[in-house]
Amino acid sequence: MSPPEPRPIFVAIIGVGGVGTAFLPQLDHVRRTLAARHPPIDLRLILARRTTTQVLAANWHALDIPTLATTLAASHQPLQPLPELLAHLATAPGSVILVDNTSSLDVARAYPAALRQGLSIVTPNKKAFSDSYELWQAIFNAAANGPSPTSSPNAGYILHESSVGAGLPLLTTLADLLATGDTLTKIEGVFSGTMSFLFNTFNPVTPDPTTPAPTFSASVTTAKALGYTEPDPRDDLNGLDVARKLTILARLAHIPIPTCTSFPVQSLIPPPLATCTSGSDFLAQLPHHDTQMDDLKASAANQGKVIRFVGSIDVASQTLKVGLESFDVSHPIAALKGSDNIVSFYTKRYGDNPLIIQGAGAGGEVTAMGVTADLLRVVQLLQ
Amino acid sequence: MSPPEPRPIFVAIIGVGGVGTAFLPQLDHVRRTLAARHPPIDLRLILARRTTTQVLAANWHALDIPTLATTLAASHQPLQPLPELLAHLATAPGSVILVDNTSSLDVARAYPAALRQGLSIVTPNKKAFSDSYELWQAIFNAAANGPSPTSSPNAGYILHESSVGAGLPLLTTLADLLATGDTLTKIEGVFSGTMSFLFNTFNPVTPDPTTPAPTFSASVTTAKALGYTEPDPRDDLNGLDVARKLTILARLAHIPIPTCTSFPVQSLIPPPLATCTSGSDFLAQLPHHDTQMDDLKASAANQGKVIRFVGSIDVASQTLKVGLESFDVSHPIAALKGSDNIVSFYTKRYGDNPLIIQGAGAGGEVTAMGVTADLLRVVQLLQ
Repeated sequence: MSPPEPRPIFVAIIGVGGVGTAFLPQLDHVRRTLAARHPPIDLRLILARRTTTQVLAANWHALDIPTLATTLAASHQPLQPLPELLAHLATAPGSVILVDNTSSLDVARAYPAALRQGLSIVTPNKKAFSDSYELWQAIFNAAANGPSPTSSPNAGYILHESSVGAGLPLLTTLADLLATGDTLTKIEGVFSGTMSFLFNTFNPVTPDPTTPAPTFSASVTTAKALGYTEPDPRDDLNGLDVARKLTILARLAHIPIPTCTSFPVQSLIPPPLATCTSGSDFLAQLPHHDTQMDDLKASAANQGKVIRFVGSIDVASQTLKVGLESFDVSHPIAALKGSDNIVSFYTKRYGDNPLIIQGAGAGGEVTAMGVTADLLRVVQLLQ
Repeated sequence: MSPPEPRPIFVAIIGVGGVGTAFLPQLDHVRRTLAARHPPIDLRLILARRTTTQVLAANWHALDIPTLATTLAASHQPLQPLPELLAHLATAPGSVILVDNTSSLDVARAYPAALRQGLSIVTPNKKAFSDSYELWQAIFNAAANGPSPTSSPNAGYILHESSVGAGLPLLTTLADLLATGDTLTKIEGVFSGTMSFLFNTFNPVTPDPTTPAPTFSASVTTAKALGYTEPDPRDDLNGLDVARKLTILARLAHIPIPTCTSFPVQSLIPPPLATCTSGSDFLAQLPHHDTQMDDLKASAANQGKVIRFVGSIDVASQTLKVGLESFDVSHPIAALKGSDNIVSFYTKRYGDNPLIIQGAGAGGEVTAMGVTADLLRVVQLLQ
């Protein structure tokens, strides 16, 4: 008797940019691992889609992962409308995991229908979970791992660890704390790699005695040169990225935040520069506004503190805020390095000293790692 | 038509001490959550066993969790031999999860047979995973989540997050890093709450200017008075607890450490005091040996450093060591508070700045939390 055919699990990727490109070798690693299992699992990539083109495998055969970039570059397959494509994927002869490596709200809006049709989803797409609360509810009401998995007998699972802090195990840890019955009191942290770099540079705990720390505007210019900011740095300085991540954590802690703008978010864009026509115009004007940040730094220094851009959730009062705060030089938030993130979970069980997780919270490979780990969890759930 | 009966999953507890007692309310919380699921899961406690007695439910009915302590105290059921009891549990009409809240090597030696018979296991029992490499192999060769799950068609799963760092998500994080194809280079940390407290007290980063820091022996006396040490503090100071945890992490990183004593472990017990007849005799003699620790502290201070008791694994060279090292005052290991643990994972993907997890690494409730989170993962795997 010949051994049984390995069971296929199909993978469909949308988005082959920074995260998507880093994800491919990890997917290939996982594919090989699963093929070597007893019994083996046949993880088959059947779709790669980006803004301009797509490659959809014929007859549910596997696309070759190492040569995918070339295949995609040579492809002339037209982009199908997304709902039609997802409905087609739902007819695959086996479970399908959709990997959304975009940051597109349009793709996110297709999640509820995809989940109801039985597709599972793993994604770092922040917008899917930080837009309207209605979209959040629609997604989790449709998911098999939502609060009422009754939408469909074969609803898919959705996991999104990398939507906050990239591959850092933040969402799994928060889920474990809550599921085991701990009482969360506060979440606080540095949630933006860009903001982390800016303030670790502008206001270091131990300044180099031979070279004065750069001004705030010079720190922004350096961060942009190193690729740590969006093309227009105002997209980081407006605090919205942090607000989105905080919205996701709060909702997971059962606080029904309406949108990512429904709580105080401090923007670091000086008001007169909000209307600059370009990022480079903004950068050219920013030095004229350095005094305000210098004053904040000096006043923190008088108390033995440094300033950092943080987000916090007070769970009991359901209060979220995002902005500058000053921290004692011995505080773990002050001691952060480079562009690292740090998140402190204060709970009843952990008492005065929180459970802290820190490390790189941005970058293609670590973001992809969170996506890949989620993919493996979904594979386990589908077995 | 009446709704289908909820599917039972049976839970059997061995050990109702510090961790076991903290585990019971968490189990009850999880039981209620699972009962409210769609479809519901009927998590049923059917056994509680401690050193002197046991309560085994008749006909697989559920024992009442809130009154369990009373039931156990009133029980006159004799202790069945463990292998016989486990074989009985394996005949339950549904999956069984064995929760080993002991630190007993005898119980651990029963794991392989229990797993082969289909029992799943969750446990904080360090000895099970840090004794001989043969026992480690026997356990994982028998488990459904081991490298070759072929021992039995219905082998059980085994999870042991709390065997290192209590509820801190260390083992899941290490597993995710490896499973997604990252390359681990080094693991380093403070793995003992007792050692953490001792050195944070004896050699604080920012000493109180009005009160000199206590001597090392005084720190040990305080730690014992606060319940942070074993009854005989030498059981902490010999470094073996840290060596056991390091052995577990190394084996999970695919380094086949023969036993927890097969690498250098520095003992902080002055050699002449190894033969003291009691813990209190030891504590009385310890002040005569404070000079050596004072010298180490002074010599670290000359370099702007503090001393800490750490464990480290250099993955490439497969080198493990446990002992005193000095750290820059700005290093996260130096800045630790109270009796917290900290673990840094250095990997290729994370680069120079490691992924760091810190927080309470001992205590009944946080240890039980790791056990309960593992129990929920096994429930998910059994669905």
